[in-house]
Amino acid sequence: MTDCLFCAGDGGRVVARTQKLRIVHADEAGFPAFYRVIWNAHQPEFTDLPAADRALAMDAVAQVERALRQQLAPTKVNLASLGNMTPHLHWHVIARFAWDSHWPGPVWAAAQRPRDPVREAGVQQRLEAIEAELAREIGAARAAVMPK
Amino acid sequence: MTDCLFCAGDGGRVVARTQKLRIVHADEAGFPAFYRVIWNAHQPEFTDLPAADRALAMDAVAQVERALRQQLAPTKVNLASLGNMTPHLHWHVIARFAWDSHWPGPVWAAAQRPRDPVREAGVQQRLEAIEAELAREIGAARAAVMPK
Repeated sequence: MTDCLFCAGDGGRVVARTQKLRIVHADEAGFPAFYRVIWNAHQPEFTDLPAADRALAMDAVAQVERALRQQLAPTKVNLASLGNMTPHLHWHVIARFAWDSHWPGPVWAAAQRPRDPVREAGVQQRLEAIEAELAREIGAARAAVMPK
Repeated sequence: MTDCLFCAGDGGRVVARTQKLRIVHADEAGFPAFYRVIWNAHQPEFTDLPAADRALAMDAVAQVERALRQQLAPTKVNLASLGNMTPHLHWHVIARFAWDSHWPGPVWAAAQRPRDPVREAGVQQRLEAIEAELAREIGAARAAVMPK
């Protein structure tokens, strides 16, 4: 599956990794706290996983959501598994704020206002704490030593 | 919470209902197989639920996805829990097709082509089978006898 983005590479900066999944920080303009839980094996749909693996995936999603809430107290957390462009199971976990450019629309809809670089920088400063928590809870980031 | 859409009403045509959640068909133009799993109690975030309830919610999401796949063989299933407008936990479960107006974008992004009423009608014809399966698997629809 070398034509699959999430088979060919990590899909973002790896924050934590287990045998079955990895958590990456996604570099999405305007949304500084945008993470993905990516299933390591190439499976397109949630129900392609057996129940125990679905539970593992959603536990990881919940861990990311919990870390975002604890560190950022976002207005809302958005969760989504779409995969239309990259049909390899992954969950978007995104901290949303009433000041962000797309609020209250989804991040995929049209912008509603300009970005707020100062507030975005405030969120950026908390990412280290979020990621330390996730690495501790879920698995040490080993991006540097794992083959891409 | 009378100002909450999903506390004030069902949020769609009820297909199945349990003590903890309900599955509704959403009337979303262009997406005939658009369902929602709505948690009955007013909780904004996924991690506001204890682990056992999160598992119940995701089992229901998986049941809907499975029924959509069996009956429609969609190009992709899209799952999302956003709640920016209605912060009452619900999951969108949407059958997506390469011919639909927004493919491969999310349903919340801009349309990419005109709708295809003939193919949409073909999907519509399968909803009864989908919903019979969900009612059987998850719980009989009792919209008529339950208070709104």
